[in-house]
Amino acid sequence: MNQNVQQAAAPGLGIEVSSKVPMHWYNLNADFPEPMPPALDPATDEPVRPADLEPLFAKSLIAQEFSSERYIEIPQPVREVYSLWRPSPLRRAVRLERALGTGARIYYKYEGVSPCGSHKPNSSVPQAYFNKIEGIERLTTETGAGQWGASLAFACALFGMGSETWQVRSSYEQKPYRRLQMGVYGSQCHPSPSELTESGRRLRGQFPDTTGSLGMAISEAVEVAAKDPRTHYALGSVLNHVMIHQSVIGLELLDQLEEAGEEQADVVFACAGGGSNAAGMMFPLLGQNLRGGSTTRLVAVEPAACPSMTEGEYRYDFGDVAGMTPKLMMYTLGADFVPPAIHAGGLRYHGMSPMVSHAVHLGLIDPIAVDQERSFEAGVAFARTEGIIPAPESTHAIAGALDHVTSGAARPGEVVVIGVSGSGVLDLAAYDGRF
Amino acid sequence: MNQNVQQAAAPGLGIEVSSKVPMHWYNLNADFPEPMPPALDPATDEPVRPADLEPLFAKSLIAQEFSSERYIEIPQPVREVYSLWRPSPLRRAVRLERALGTGARIYYKYEGVSPCGSHKPNSSVPQAYFNKIEGIERLTTETGAGQWGASLAFACALFGMGSETWQVRSSYEQKPYRRLQMGVYGSQCHPSPSELTESGRRLRGQFPDTTGSLGMAISEAVEVAAKDPRTHYALGSVLNHVMIHQSVIGLELLDQLEEAGEEQADVVFACAGGGSNAAGMMFPLLGQNLRGGSTTRLVAVEPAACPSMTEGEYRYDFGDVAGMTPKLMMYTLGADFVPPAIHAGGLRYHGMSPMVSHAVHLGLIDPIAVDQERSFEAGVAFARTEGIIPAPESTHAIAGALDHVTSGAARPGEVVVIGVSGSGVLDLAAYDGRF
Repeated sequence: MNQNVQQAAAPGLGIEVSSKVPMHWYNLNADFPEPMPPALDPATDEPVRPADLEPLFAKSLIAQEFSSERYIEIPQPVREVYSLWRPSPLRRAVRLERALGTGARIYYKYEGVSPCGSHKPNSSVPQAYFNKIEGIERLTTETGAGQWGASLAFACALFGMGSETWQVRSSYEQKPYRRLQMGVYGSQCHPSPSELTESGRRLRGQFPDTTGSLGMAISEAVEVAAKDPRTHYALGSVLNHVMIHQSVIGLELLDQLEEAGEEQADVVFACAGGGSNAAGMMFPLLGQNLRGGSTTRLVAVEPAACPSMTEGEYRYDFGDVAGMTPKLMMYTLGADFVPPAIHAGGLRYHGMSPMVSHAVHLGLIDPIAVDQERSFEAGVAFARTEGIIPAPESTHAIAGALDHVTSGAARPGEVVVIGVSGSGVLDLAAYDGRF
Repeated sequence: MNQNVQQAAAPGLGIEVSSKVPMHWYNLNADFPEPMPPALDPATDEPVRPADLEPLFAKSLIAQEFSSERYIEIPQPVREVYSLWRPSPLRRAVRLERALGTGARIYYKYEGVSPCGSHKPNSSVPQAYFNKIEGIERLTTETGAGQWGASLAFACALFGMGSETWQVRSSYEQKPYRRLQMGVYGSQCHPSPSELTESGRRLRGQFPDTTGSLGMAISEAVEVAAKDPRTHYALGSVLNHVMIHQSVIGLELLDQLEEAGEEQADVVFACAGGGSNAAGMMFPLLGQNLRGGSTTRLVAVEPAACPSMTEGEYRYDFGDVAGMTPKLMMYTLGADFVPPAIHAGGLRYHGMSPMVSHAVHLGLIDPIAVDQERSFEAGVAFARTEGIIPAPESTHAIAGALDHVTSGAARPGEVVVIGVSGSGVLDLAAYDGRF
């Protein structure tokens, strides 16, 4: 971490933060048995250098992207914002256990308590903060269903920054709630492709009737950030620094399991789209496994309709549809893969975070795929016993855990932990006809 | 409380509950300087007796309705469910203070963390529980926008009971999210008036194009409960036992202020529709005032468009439009008052809980009215500083507090507490055009 940057950091507002909110993020790159393959420059196929990323990202975030330090200090102003909802609860799912008639002890870690209803602010808050202290005034991003856009708008509002989001046009029109959320937070949200950028105008010229795509929205957000020295770009998943920020989930989980008197989690289920939630839940536990402190099985659950880890190839591919990003070594269905319109919008990415992919490739994380209908069934069972309506993404992790328990694979006393990455209240339409 | 009933109570599931979740509810009827005027039988104008209520309500709840005990034990199974979100957070609004440039210390107590997003489950959970242990299998209720219906569905799901809700037809059709929420929890939700009841069929015959009203929905829910000995009826506000259940809010607030090192709240702002949120925030503090332990000013904020306390009369009136309920001594705009279609659906009741009304009549609570537009402005300011988008109802309390602070009425060091009764995420459409 850049020491000068650290010294420029604001001391915080003097808000008292519980010691249960982690002081450091965890970086799995310190414990991988072999290093990750580097990202490659798409023009030269040479490894990307930190300086290449400076037009778009804050120096502190770039340093994290390339870091192999095990622990990275969380600045106090970030902890102050985290304290709005962190530590997120770990709860024993006693009613669910009884309904299943299992002797396993089922826990769930619930990220839906954040002001935006998902795990996304775990990274939007530090991304806004590190840009703010480097003098950046505004962040741009793209968003699909809108969870990341809303989370970035929230973070920028609290640090007094502007933000501008390009949202896939079909979502912008069909799902007004998240763009209203961005508006309340003071963010500008545009349907993409828009008339505001060169790439947007070009795309609208080529495809006048397009309903947009994440790839198009990325092009617009990156273009705007690249042109203005006071503006940077922010990404909500895939990159290493995002995985690092999300580690607060798993770090808290370790403490909370200990507090609950459990020796370890025997098996953890988390849903995986771009990988940020799965990384957050699992990497601190995986690090402990690798350092010899535990034998936790880690299961990343993806939708059968977008099975990058279970059916994709492990190879270099572009992060976006347009081929503008560095090439990343990852499990991929191909950058031009068009996933079906499943309800779990957060699980429709064609690839998988390089860090998660590397862990899967090394056999450290087990990927499984579950069907959307089975996931909703599990989500309804969870809501009726535990009282929380999970996000469609999160129902995949619940289905994975329920199948494990009901198949008889769980032994009595086994500690099963489910990552519930978000609340489903803004996705209730997806549940229609499923109860 | 009926001792036999208590002995029949389930011991709970063995879920560990923090000692910060209250062990008892507080009943302001123990501390009122003069007793409340009784509810009257509409046929005889004689005081209603407990036995009159038995066809509709559980005996334990009726006992609470007539109780003057100061503290009423919260059964462990209710505390176990409360522990899903209680204690709700009390937070210092440091960013808001800075934005206002005030020397006052502003706190807010946030009930939006409940699985249903508002304070309503504080009463739906004990109502379901006390009915369950008396052998009741199903509860009926009415709902407008759907917050109470969803909260009752949640509570019934967790205690393995059925529930059936009649929702005002216009809301049923225009706002599908809350009825989907009820559906996920396993509750049946019908648009009212429906073909399922005599009163519904009669109303549909009389008014074929009606979009429904709360009064009509009450008639249907009560009719179904009255006809079936295994079914009872549940109400989400107005009645004494609901005010008692909501006291968990204020009881926690007292503990949390002490923990924060504050001697007392100097002034508390809470929104008031039927009165359950205001009672919950204020009654434990009012009781302390009355017992000589504090001098907290209590301000109930209502919408200028439905000003029962500030412009209504204090007299006996019916609780419902049809005149089926007992007559209650309360501030009222008249049982036939039709409030305008303001966005704060929870603040559109023509009257005010008799307990809150009695306190206002005795000069123990100060009522004020604020305009809807000013409320949303305050809600946006709150979201952009504190990160939480408040429910339209809650924005009234925020506006009251902000006006107090910015008018210069707050002295430096004054402790101002705002009751934020719910989350606004399912009401984001109401914010459209207001930022």
